[in-house]
Amino acid sequence: MFISLEGMEGSGKSTVLKKLHAWLESEGHEVLLTREPGGSELGKTLRALLLDAENTDITSEAELFMYLADRAQHVSQVIKPALEAGKVVLCDRYADSTVVYQGYGRGLDPNLLHSFNEVATKGLWPNITLLLDVEPEIGLRRALSRNIEKGLSRAEGRFEAEAMEFHSRVREGYLTWAALNNKRFAVIDASVTPDEVFDQVVNSMRTCIDVMKAEAIG
Amino acid sequence: MFISLEGMEGSGKSTVLKKLHAWLESEGHEVLLTREPGGSELGKTLRALLLDAENTDITSEAELFMYLADRAQHVSQVIKPALEAGKVVLCDRYADSTVVYQGYGRGLDPNLLHSFNEVATKGLWPNITLLLDVEPEIGLRRALSRNIEKGLSRAEGRFEAEAMEFHSRVREGYLTWAALNNKRFAVIDASVTPDEVFDQVVNSMRTCIDVMKAEAIG
Repeated sequence: MFISLEGMEGSGKSTVLKKLHAWLESEGHEVLLTREPGGSELGKTLRALLLDAENTDITSEAELFMYLADRAQHVSQVIKPALEAGKVVLCDRYADSTVVYQGYGRGLDPNLLHSFNEVATKGLWPNITLLLDVEPEIGLRRALSRNIEKGLSRAEGRFEAEAMEFHSRVREGYLTWAALNNKRFAVIDASVTPDEVFDQVVNSMRTCIDVMKAEAIG
Repeated sequence: MFISLEGMEGSGKSTVLKKLHAWLESEGHEVLLTREPGGSELGKTLRALLLDAENTDITSEAELFMYLADRAQHVSQVIKPALEAGKVVLCDRYADSTVVYQGYGRGLDPNLLHSFNEVATKGLWPNITLLLDVEPEIGLRRALSRNIEKGLSRAEGRFEAEAMEFHSRVREGYLTWAALNNKRFAVIDASVTPDEVFDQVVNSMRTCIDVMKAEAIG
């Protein structure tokens, strides 16, 4: 089973990842926890280039292709081998992030981006994509206070330094893209407490597992 | 005017670049000499990753997207500003290398690659592309003896370490792609002496300049 987690800065992805990892293991699964960008050796270098707040002069197109390079390497070297070994792969961001951030966020054509993703992923899509949905104002407030707690500047990450208008486009983009791919997406209300968020996650996971079992039998 | 230079390892690109740079300056042009990968600040890091002989586990798709990222940044940050400032841009490898090496060489679809290039270049194509054509056996022999002279191992570069079969596909790919784009390509016989090679280059350059002048008047 391949699970991806999507959502804006401050949507609570890290907390959900930790809990979901533990829950999957308690259900008897061997889990590979990974992320994009940066899930492969090559990807670590690409991640550093992409998320460095100094690199604000990276063009939209260069950024796009670096994410795709990271993904191609990640799929071939990390995700596919783990799935073939029978593991559950839990991935923090995947191909949908490209469609949403570079497409809806930065104005590149979402359908063209989907065809680029088809090359990078060789057609490998998650069984379930959990979208942690939160209003950008709430997400950014959480992300900024997290930075201050860590002793970082308010706008540590490149994405966090973007204008609020960009984050609004990203949020709407996520919801649009989830609706267009509603067979795979589960939209989680992430504005509530961590426990309430995780209850929704577990319900979505159980539904997905039931569907997969039914398909395997049928 | 935008000039790109293409050809295999050992085809004599470096020598031609040096001579052509001097010739263009002697004709009164201000010239920007640049290259792919590695023509921008970001590109220098990508170039190091791509050409590192240790990185033999980079997948074809990851390699492709890294070249495209390098190109997108190079076009926006280096080539377009120079052309707009009235300079002649002389580029060591450009988008055709991707079609030939990743397409004809590694088996990705050349037409799909062309559409990727359209995004990376934003539709900017050279006025003339000089293809230094040489049999792979001759080119590789030159490249290997150059490595030995420099005190490097025989197979210093990742590409030079490829099987001869790959280099044959690349050579044929270059000739096919040049034929499909014969309005822009000038195929130079690079098996002869450096002076004879450069005579062909100057002839092709004069023809291209005449055509551009005629088009500007017409």
